[in-house]
Amino acid sequence: MKALIISADGFEDSELLVPYYRLLEEGMEADIASMTKGPIKGKHGYEVQAVKALADVAPDDYDILVLPGGRAPAIVRKERTALEIAKDFFLKKKPVAAICHGPQILITAGLLEGRRATCYRTVADELKASGAVYEDKPVIVDGNLVTSRQPSDLPAFMREVMKMVRGHTMKRSA
Amino acid sequence: MKALIISADGFEDSELLVPYYRLLEEGMEADIASMTKGPIKGKHGYEVQAVKALADVAPDDYDILVLPGGRAPAIVRKERTALEIAKDFFLKKKPVAAICHGPQILITAGLLEGRRATCYRTVADELKASGAVYEDKPVIVDGNLVTSRQPSDLPAFMREVMKMVRGHTMKRSA
Repeated sequence: MKALIISADGFEDSELLVPYYRLLEEGMEADIASMTKGPIKGKHGYEVQAVKALADVAPDDYDILVLPGGRAPAIVRKERTALEIAKDFFLKKKPVAAICHGPQILITAGLLEGRRATCYRTVADELKASGAVYEDKPVIVDGNLVTSRQPSDLPAFMREVMKMVRGHTMKRSA
Repeated sequence: MKALIISADGFEDSELLVPYYRLLEEGMEADIASMTKGPIKGKHGYEVQAVKALADVAPDDYDILVLPGGRAPAIVRKERTALEIAKDFFLKKKPVAAICHGPQILITAGLLEGRRATCYRTVADELKASGAVYEDKPVIVDGNLVTSRQPSDLPAFMREVMKMVRGHTMKRSA
């Protein structure tokens, strides 16, 4: 099992680090991808290494896509390659987990029409405008999609992400 | 199951937040305690609420003690109450998990004589001087004690902490 985390400078540190460490704890691999390979820096100053440039990502190599929040999604949503990667995950019904401002990437990719989802409160209006059914809850699961609102939702977010990852493993090995 | 996290201003943010969110993900409760009740601030600026003053902590209410690192342990180790709480956990062989500078509290409490443990590299000398058997590895488990070196060890640290928590639950319900 391998996770792809797409982010950029200005990521919400805990929303990247908590899923990253949690997936590694589970024995999975996790690659961070950004516009270019190299260090990216969070809002609070944590630095992580993007081991892949978006252009070099092969979505088929990954089993789950994680989109942390912060200021990063506003940059990432302008990258056509990031949108194409997200579309590929949806097309193949592979798990996609987005928190806080992370769903902005899915909005721009046009993937939320008719989907139940949540996000950071300041993103709610554009989420609704994109055709999603917004709910103000710690975590919303709709098919392959897990969304949460903010760092304090991380326990609920990761609980559902891990369930989905394990379910996906069972389906793949069935 | 309930965890007690003891820290103070200057905690290493990820070393407090990752275990905190992980234990909540597992369905446990987790209380943060410090010198006084109220907000404490991490090195990177994250603020968390200490819901208990150390003086008001009843160790018997808790099943595991977590000691994050950063600059906080240098302050916490001066608090006799914190040392007494740590001693109580060791006496009752309840899980104690310390990372980075966290083991400094256990050193001052005189709890590491003959114990296998690890810690942040700059703490290694005083760990050895306290009689511990130091090993430079991502995680060391010795009886009730789990120790790690730094944030990048968090996946290994939490894997062993969760094993210990589950084992402890089974013992208690047996």
